[in-house]
Amino acid sequence: MGPSRRRYYLGIDIGATWVKMGIVGHRGFLRAKEEFDTREIRSPRQFLSRTQETIEGLLKASSIERAAVGGTGVGAPGWVDYSNGIVRELTNIPKWHDVPLADQLTRATGLQTFVDNDANVMAVGELIHGAGRGHVNFICLTLGTGVGGAIIINGKIYRGARGLAGEIGHMVLDHNGPRCACGANGCLERYVGNRFIVANAVRRLEEGRGARRRSTILKLANHDVNAITPKLLAEAAAQGDAIAREVWRETGQYIGTALAVLVNLLNPECFIIGGGVAKAGHVLFDPIRKTLARLAMNKLGRVTPVREAQLGEDAGIVGAATFARTCTETG
Amino acid sequence: MGPSRRRYYLGIDIGATWVKMGIVGHRGFLRAKEEFDTREIRSPRQFLSRTQETIEGLLKASSIERAAVGGTGVGAPGWVDYSNGIVRELTNIPKWHDVPLADQLTRATGLQTFVDNDANVMAVGELIHGAGRGHVNFICLTLGTGVGGAIIINGKIYRGARGLAGEIGHMVLDHNGPRCACGANGCLERYVGNRFIVANAVRRLEEGRGARRRSTILKLANHDVNAITPKLLAEAAAQGDAIAREVWRETGQYIGTALAVLVNLLNPECFIIGGGVAKAGHVLFDPIRKTLARLAMNKLGRVTPVREAQLGEDAGIVGAATFARTCTETG
Repeated sequence: MGPSRRRYYLGIDIGATWVKMGIVGHRGFLRAKEEFDTREIRSPRQFLSRTQETIEGLLKASSIERAAVGGTGVGAPGWVDYSNGIVRELTNIPKWHDVPLADQLTRATGLQTFVDNDANVMAVGELIHGAGRGHVNFICLTLGTGVGGAIIINGKIYRGARGLAGEIGHMVLDHNGPRCACGANGCLERYVGNRFIVANAVRRLEEGRGARRRSTILKLANHDVNAITPKLLAEAAAQGDAIAREVWRETGQYIGTALAVLVNLLNPECFIIGGGVAKAGHVLFDPIRKTLARLAMNKLGRVTPVREAQLGEDAGIVGAATFARTCTETG
Repeated sequence: MGPSRRRYYLGIDIGATWVKMGIVGHRGFLRAKEEFDTREIRSPRQFLSRTQETIEGLLKASSIERAAVGGTGVGAPGWVDYSNGIVRELTNIPKWHDVPLADQLTRATGLQTFVDNDANVMAVGELIHGAGRGHVNFICLTLGTGVGGAIIINGKIYRGARGLAGEIGHMVLDHNGPRCACGANGCLERYVGNRFIVANAVRRLEEGRGARRRSTILKLANHDVNAITPKLLAEAAAQGDAIAREVWRETGQYIGTALAVLVNLLNPECFIIGGGVAKAGHVLFDPIRKTLARLAMNKLGRVTPVREAQLGEDAGIVGAATFARTCTETG
């Protein structure tokens, strides 16, 4: 069967809490989907057997023949050696080191498998099926626990000399700022990663006079500081809570500053921002756009669109499957 | 005469104080050279007639026939629309606005002319004849009055969507830092541009107890604060002056931080640093390399070389001529 007959691709999205797998058609539609707890794949061996099992189930559920599947794509959060198909390290999953995942999965499933980091596969999904259609040079950010990044140049993921380009979360915004896990100071991620957004809100609740009383944040959290999440802060902001709005404004300014530097450096056609934190919507995107317009050189900030990622919930699966498709198509 | 017989290219380097022109052979050797004061070309019209004249002189002096010259390259400090051959703005030369220089010079001289900004043509020179040979992905910095930048990807200048990529001088290192001319705060250039290096030294001379007395800087400057230049500070550092060394250490740390961010973002094969300030040598390059090694992710800072530009004094001319050659060769 020629590649033109292989109309489906498998996508696997390894997330911090869930592993999602699905079969994706040529136009990016999800035909079947399954997910399981990331804790079930603490070891690569567990991951292999669980994946084999799941793929069989997906094929059966969707009545798609294995021969119609062109390959499998995997998006992994961490350091991935794409060209050798090796997962060097997984963020938050300590037992994975130098796992030759592409080879192992190819052998275990009979489907040619390609592995890349999650931000890169998400960018490929948006490029082919989402907010990046029609563009050849753009930059993707994923906002979540960490800040992922991918740079698309001439319609392809730009990887750099050793495949490690795109670490947008580790742009320094204040070289005297708080220490980041990467060893530098004042990185973007150190301000807008999930828990730093929450910490910003908690600090404001503790500092402001009467702030605790006036703010709806603690009410929404049932007076449990540990229940505060970016999602909850987005809700509070939507209800007009001053502290929540201020937190999002500051978060947007940090991100907008990073985008302005990226415009000065790379002059992309547009930015695409996805990930859980991006769901905050206009309370986040408004200050991002305003800051970008103010700071980028040559007035480029005003003509460089900042778009929300379009693939939503299943962006990881669709991106991984689309990534596999582009890998098989280009050889 | 076919292009293979056209063995020479003209290079024009428009600098802040001097305009340099020369004829360059295929291997990057300068065959003849002339320069004049930048104040002589305040208007584009003056530039055209002065250039015509100079080109005639260079051809005569080198006994090279016009037919053996394949074209002219111009490197201009400012905002250049490369694809249309238009100089939008020249830094420090106010009367130039939207000058269609490529067309005008082509008509005036009968030699096909290409225009780009000075950092880009310098990068092409280093790519073909200098420290970039053998590399396809690298980043160039020119340190002088401003901080210029050029990004080489897949052996070509990366220009971005509107030809404005590469503004490395306007990477933000401290979003709360001092205001930069570009409108942002705490840009790299705001710390390591010529006059900010000097201002750093002057501040230290004024602040430190007895610093003025112990330092050799003012002696070298004949006790004239206005005579302090980066070149003089390099001399003082070479003589072991503590303040000068500290200024260079800090300057190197700023640049090294920017390079670490660039490694995280673009993972280049190497960096090439040129321009007058780079002549400070190891007092500058040592802290650059040390900071890069400390801050870049995945230990990439330790394996990404930071090289001095090789083309020296005439880098601008050789770069511009080489740039013209690559433009005619690729059509």
